[in-house]
This record gives sequence, structure tokens and C-alpha cells, in this order.
Amino acid sequence: MQKLEIIRSEISEINSALGKKTQERLDNLTKPRGSLGRLEELAVKMTAITGKEDPPVKKKVIFVLAGDHGVASEGVSAYPREVTPQMVLNFLRGGAGINVLARNMGGRVVIADMGVASDLEPHPELVIKKVRYGTANITKGPAMTKEEAVISVERGIEIFESEFKKGIDIAGTGDMGIGNTTPSSAIVSVMTGRSVEDVTGRGTGIDDAGLERKIALIKKAIEINRPNPKDAMDVLSKVGGFEIGGLVGVILGAASKKVPVVIDGFISGAAALIAAQIEPKTKDYMIAAHSSVEKGHRACLDYMGLRPLLDLDLRLGEGTGAALAINIVEGAVKILTEMATFQSASVSRGNEK
Amino acid sequence: MQKLEIIRSEISEINSALGKKTQERLDNLTKPRGSLGRLEELAVKMTAITGKEDPPVKKKVIFVLAGDHGVASEGVSAYPREVTPQMVLNFLRGGAGINVLARNMGGRVVIADMGVASDLEPHPELVIKKVRYGTANITKGPAMTKEEAVISVERGIEIFESEFKKGIDIAGTGDMGIGNTTPSSAIVSVMTGRSVEDVTGRGTGIDDAGLERKIALIKKAIEINRPNPKDAMDVLSKVGGFEIGGLVGVILGAASKKVPVVIDGFISGAAALIAAQIEPKTKDYMIAAHSSVEKGHRACLDYMGLRPLLDLDLRLGEGTGAALAINIVEGAVKILTEMATFQSASVSRGNEK
Repeated sequence: MQKLEIIRSEISEINSALGKKTQERLDNLTKPRGSLGRLEELAVKMTAITGKEDPPVKKKVIFVLAGDHGVASEGVSAYPREVTPQMVLNFLRGGAGINVLARNMGGRVVIADMGVASDLEPHPELVIKKVRYGTANITKGPAMTKEEAVISVERGIEIFESEFKKGIDIAGTGDMGIGNTTPSSAIVSVMTGRSVEDVTGRGTGIDDAGLERKIALIKKAIEINRPNPKDAMDVLSKVGGFEIGGLVGVILGAASKKVPVVIDGFISGAAALIAAQIEPKTKDYMIAAHSSVEKGHRACLDYMGLRPLLDLDLRLGEGTGAALAINIVEGAVKILTEMATFQSASVSRGNEK
Repeated sequence: MQKLEIIRSEISEINSALGKKTQERLDNLTKPRGSLGRLEELAVKMTAITGKEDPPVKKKVIFVLAGDHGVASEGVSAYPREVTPQMVLNFLRGGAGINVLARNMGGRVVIADMGVASDLEPHPELVIKKVRYGTANITKGPAMTKEEAVISVERGIEIFESEFKKGIDIAGTGDMGIGNTTPSSAIVSVMTGRSVEDVTGRGTGIDDAGLERKIALIKKAIEINRPNPKDAMDVLSKVGGFEIGGLVGVILGAASKKVPVVIDGFISGAAALIAAQIEPKTKDYMIAAHSSVEKGHRACLDYMGLRPLLDLDLRLGEGTGAALAINIVEGAVKILTEMATFQSASVSRGNEK
């Protein structure tokens, strides 16, 4: 537990005083007060998180963590489990959705194997942090041991820290793991207190009968494992996943280094819930990228009080929503740092209320 | 009327058959079917509009048209009228919100004087298409003559065509004109049949009393001028503006050249309503950038059946929302053109419903 405890102690309050000063700066720029809405909110947040008056947004990194799930053998996904390693290869070759959208916003993608159920061929860009070959079937017992849960989070922290050395101005989260909306729904149900029905969707695209079975299986998993909603690591170990644990680590690592972290969709949201319970101050370092089609995502964001930036009917994961949102954040920061003031541009002021 | 009639006749149906083929292509990419939601919808639309299988999104141009409004003398805005020319200078120097966001998405900005109430110093990047020194006060009579309305639209077409020669893959609309939410509310009320109260907001930031007065003035303008909702050019001439007429021309010009046009906020929306009535096929060439804080904007988009991409509480105008949206469109097209297929990446298919 040591590394996790250290990181936790290193997460401090964001700099709200600087945020306030930033709003005053924004009010001096050549536009009606508040007229750039959420862009202004983002600019304020970026300064408060980083503690920098002019936060850079050059080095943008999306962390895509992959893991397999024992529960996939129950047929909870429209896709076969072999797709997890196949997609990791696709990421490494640059052909997946996240590669395209990360390139479009000028960011890099870090791919890590947290617990894929097969051996992946070594690749210079593949980070191997495998905890185990996939989780156990959560409908029959815990996904992993308590020790493995801690290891998955600590390895996530390591992944972040190793990339942080190369420079990160803003991080995004992403996931790959066939079957992983199932543990995510379990986590979100347990931690927010919502019913399983309320937080379970169709994932990659199962039909009505499949959805009903998925709900029953998640209920069974919660019943058998009795995860303690007050103990996030207990929830992670009993109904979580290795990529989810890794993302918890990435989020905590980012917060500890005052790096804003853009939370992608449902799986990332489940990881964010766990990170926020481990250390509530972490929430202030998060930016919610979008509102996923996956039903439980809203419950998850509402619980943390995060308002998503985009609503584009996405449900792919991989960090695709985070990549799109980072471009908006970049625009927001540039508004702050590049726009003229009323004075510098000799523009008359208004008397807006 | 000749130029306008020619352009109208040049606007053809979009290529829906190609759009359909594009959806099939998208379904072969390594992602669950439909999982990129509105990005897929945008990719389909971009091919249908351009008639190109792989539409380029390199040359991105935002047209920011400026004009003054006689009604500003009634105190409908929180800002004094001199701000219109001051902001045009700010645009030319690159210090305004639209300059920052256009740079952020790699686009260029075209600034045109359609009817600013003062003489602007010549500048190599200022397009001068001034119809007159500001409209007349619409609470006392028509904003402009019918001839001036036609001229404003035709000059907008000219602006588009001259830029088109330099190459445009995607266009965005933007506006500047102190007081211009007032004519826009009048246009939207007349053309959609909604009450003035329903479509009138606070613009740059007036208080409750100001809003009440603004509503009364708009009602008076409609009463005095009796614009004919079935005749868009009549509406433009009676309660419109020169920058609004210019934007009508930009939108028609774009549609005639099969160039997708991203409609910014409320003022652009009012222009879009007029363009769509002049030639209904124009609507299919539009992409609605965002949902503005300005109340009447939703009414406007709903009337045209356009669903906005972003909802970021913006109300600045200038094309700022269009600039943000164009980056999303670019991402959508790159998904289509850069992602791997299941076959090329050797990824197994799912059986999603």
C-alpha cells in the first residue's frame, strides 16, 4: 500500500485563489463578460489545477489501458475476447479511433497492457504492466485479490510517472477490454447506490435479451462479492478490472503532479469514482470529456458533480471523447493567453449586468 | 436579383447515395457499429455535401461579417456602437476570440465590412463590401431598401466566391455588430412564428428592464414594418441587417459550390433561416455548430431541423462556436479516412444488434 499512500498524501487542494484571478483576467478580454461560457470555466480550472497563470497545453497524452475480464465468458459482450489483444495491436499500428483523434489534436497515445488474457508481442511502444492474464469471473467470486488491486493502481501510477518525466501538460484516460462495461456498471452501482438497471447499458451492442442477462449477472456479482461501497479498493478488487485499476492510478498520479486529467467515458468514469473515493481532492483535477451513450455514465458524473463538455453520442471508449475534449480545453487556455484586453485593443467597455 | 437567382439555381441536392455508402464504410472500421455517434453522422454528411468519398478538411475559413444597426441608438445593447469598428480592428490585429479559436483549429478568418457606420482604415485583410453606413432604426421603418437587401446578399456571395478561388474545404459563419441580436430576434420571430418573448435574450448582457424594453422595441419593429414571413428578402430588408444579409450570401454561395457551411450562433442562425427559405436545399449544406445561450437560437435550429454539435454556453458570436465545431468535423472526417478496417487490422467482428 505504500506507494498508493504516498501519492495520496501528495494530492493537494487546487489553487482556487489563482482561479479567481484568472476570471478577473478573462473579464478584461475583448468580449462581453462570461460570453465564452464553459471555455472561461475551463480556463479558470486549468490555472487552478496547474497553479500556473498561463498553463501550457502542448504536451497532451492519452493513456489507453487494456485488460481482459473473466466475465466475458458469460457472453456479456457482442465481441469475442480475442478482440482485446487485436485492438492493442491496432493501437500500436495507429489504426484505431483513438490514434486518429489523438493525431487530430496533436497528442500522443500511451498503450499499456494491464491484464490482457494473452501474451502480447513486445513492441517499443507497448508498456507492459500486466498484473495477471485477465480477471476472474466476477459472477463466481472476486475479480482479483486485494493485493492485485493495489498492484494495478500502483502500476497505473508508475505509467503516469514515467510519462510525466517526458512532460505532460494535460492527460486523458482511455480503455480497452472486451466485457468491461460489466464491471464498470457493477462499480458505479455499488459506489453511487443506484440500481443495476439504472446504470447498465448495451456496451458494444447487445440486444434486449443480452441486456437482461447482463443485468442479472451484475446483480449476481454484487450479491456474491458484497463489495463495501465505503472502501473503493474493496470494490475494485471484487468487481473491477486491471485496466480500471490502472486508470485509477493514472488519475491519482496526474492529480499528485497537478496535471489536469480529462476523463473519457463510462469505464474511465468508474475509475474516476474509485480515485475520488481514495482521495476526494482528486475530483478537482478532473475534466469530464463527454456524456456517453452508456447509461450509467451520467449517474457516475452526477455523483461526482462533474458536467461533461461534449454530448456526441459516443460509446467507443479508448479515450476518443477525451481526445476531442482536449482540443476544446486547448482553445479555452488560448483564449486566456492570446486574446487582447479592452485596453490593449482600445475597445470601449460595456455596462453588462 | 440576377446573381441571387443564378446562385439559387446552382444549389443542387446533396449526394445521399454517397452518404449511404459512407455509412457502410464506417461500419467496416475497427469499432462497434455506430459507436462514434455524431462523428459518424458528420462523416456521412461531409461526403454527401461535397460529393467526395474522402472530403479534404484542410482549408478552413471563417467569414466574419460586420455591420451596424440603427436600432442600437435605442439602447438595446450593453455596448456602445463604436465597438463594432473597434472590434473589426481587433479582428484584423488577431486579438479577438475568433482569431484565437481559428488559429487553434488551423483556419483562416476573412473579415468584411458589410455596413459599419463609420469608415474603416483600409487594411490588406479587410474586405470592404459596405452597403451603407448602418441600417435605419427598425422601430421607425425598414432597416434597408429591398435593393439594399439584395445587394447585401449578393456581396456576401461575392465574398464567398472570391475566397473559394483560393480554396475552401469547409466554411464557418461569424458576425460582429453592436445591437444585432435585436434584428435577429425579429427575423426569428417572424420566420418561425414564435412570440418575440420566446426568441429574445440578453445579447451582450442587458438587465431585466433592458430586456423588457428590447422585447417591446422588437414588437414595435415588427408591427410597423409588417415583414412577410413567406418572403425572406422582405424580412431581411425590413428587420434585418447588412452583416446578416452578407451571411445569407455566404451560406448560399457555399451551398452552390458544395462546400459545407458551419453555422455559428444566433445571428448566423437568423441568416441561415433566410437562406433556407430562399432555397430549402441549402439546409442540407449546413452544420449547426452549437446551441447558444441566446434564447431564440434553439427556436431557429429546431425550425430548420438542425441539431447543434456543441453546448458550451457560448454567446459571443464572431464565429467562435463554428471554429470549435470545425475541429470536431475534421476529427470526424479523419475517422473515415484514417481508421483501419476490421480486415486490414485483423480484428474479429462482433455480432452487435
